[in-house]
Amino acid sequence: MYNNEIYKDESIDDLQLKGLKLIQKKDAFRFGVDAVLLSDFANVKNNFRVIDLCTGTGIIPFLIWGKYSPKEVVGIEIQEDIANMAQRSTELNSVQDKIKFYAEDLRDLEFLKSLGRFDVVTVNPPYKLNSTGIVNPSDKLAIARHEVMCTLEDVIIASRTLLKDNGRIYMVHRPERLVDILNLMRKHRVEPKRIRMVHPNTKKAPNIVLVEGQRDGGKFLKWEAPLYVYNDEGGYSDEINSIYGRNE
Amino acid sequence: MYNNEIYKDESIDDLQLKGLKLIQKKDAFRFGVDAVLLSDFANVKNNFRVIDLCTGTGIIPFLIWGKYSPKEVVGIEIQEDIANMAQRSTELNSVQDKIKFYAEDLRDLEFLKSLGRFDVVTVNPPYKLNSTGIVNPSDKLAIARHEVMCTLEDVIIASRTLLKDNGRIYMVHRPERLVDILNLMRKHRVEPKRIRMVHPNTKKAPNIVLVEGQRDGGKFLKWEAPLYVYNDEGGYSDEINSIYGRNE
Repeated sequence: MYNNEIYKDESIDDLQLKGLKLIQKKDAFRFGVDAVLLSDFANVKNNFRVIDLCTGTGIIPFLIWGKYSPKEVVGIEIQEDIANMAQRSTELNSVQDKIKFYAEDLRDLEFLKSLGRFDVVTVNPPYKLNSTGIVNPSDKLAIARHEVMCTLEDVIIASRTLLKDNGRIYMVHRPERLVDILNLMRKHRVEPKRIRMVHPNTKKAPNIVLVEGQRDGGKFLKWEAPLYVYNDEGGYSDEINSIYGRNE
Repeated sequence: MYNNEIYKDESIDDLQLKGLKLIQKKDAFRFGVDAVLLSDFANVKNNFRVIDLCTGTGIIPFLIWGKYSPKEVVGIEIQEDIANMAQRSTELNSVQDKIKFYAEDLRDLEFLKSLGRFDVVTVNPPYKLNSTGIVNPSDKLAIARHEVMCTLEDVIIASRTLLKDNGRIYMVHRPERLVDILNLMRKHRVEPKRIRMVHPNTKKAPNIVLVEGQRDGGKFLKWEAPLYVYNDEGGYSDEINSIYGRNE
């Protein structure tokens, strides 16, 4: 170790949220706007059990914890060294009793069942179909970005397995995958209930989609007003500043 | 008849497009923004055969004809008196050789096959599920608005039957039905390829969705920039004025 807490290729970053800190790799596995928007989109109460799939550095569990103080947050990450990095972040923040990470495969449904049921699943899954044949399965970033180790369908099956009756999943994904998302959710009876599109600005097509689904929910889909990242002057929009806690 | 062309409860309205006129009922079956936006969204070449389902007064065939001058436009309407009104509009405009209406049921696939294959299907289907039990099936407006005489699945099956290989469907619908639309299109191998959302203004959720599908198309969904009906000052947006041909 570089010091007691991190390795040489890691940094400790301040989440600007209740003093929480996150260990990240210096050149990869650094969180982006997706995680922040998903944490804002989710509805979490303080008596909830929450689980984050494909958790990576654990950014979403830490943001959920910082924003909503739920009873418990669990993160699942298949890559052992990344899960270990997330676990070290819990120690750095002294929240080991509230946030737990497991280096497990979300396709292992018996393991998932051993965790009990959750009120909320969050997930920022790999976006890209692994259909091009160009992905090296030993490439750690490829595993995070491409459907190498799990497909969208695996994620939805895992979510259904983990959710309580009428529990909710919150997913961030790319709009071009929306046909797949809505088909697979309905197929596995996690009914899409709410969608919010995120656009770079008012003139551009959406490039991020936020989807809420409900286990065995009734068929009614609500659309939110769009979220624009930048305003007409090219600065961050008021809503983005508010989500990032920068609207003083 | 009131005069040689129309009945007492009808009016003749100028489409403000190449001198075309449309017979409408004075108090119902009057076209709205949906038809105008769908005609704008469709890609039609002048050698195309186009068919419009649930055509009503025939507004979409007349707009398609006026904008793109395709080889032939056909409209199907199950309500005989409404189809008759559309047919009288063709005579009023002397385009009987280019636009034809049939009072037929789109669930009659043998009839559809007798028409041959089309390059493009357009459709502004009934929006509402007929699940509430409050709809009177003898109510002509209810038939246009609720899935009394045909479901969304019937419309998509009819479209697949009518389309040439790789032919395109253009549909206008409500965003809250998007899960149904995308599921049923993929189920019947009319792959969703392009979506445009229409919002009252930049601050509001979408209230109209335009969807393009392709018969046996590959899986890739493109999102367009949103269309806003009103600008920030409450007037029509520049794009709406342009679509309506009002940007002189």
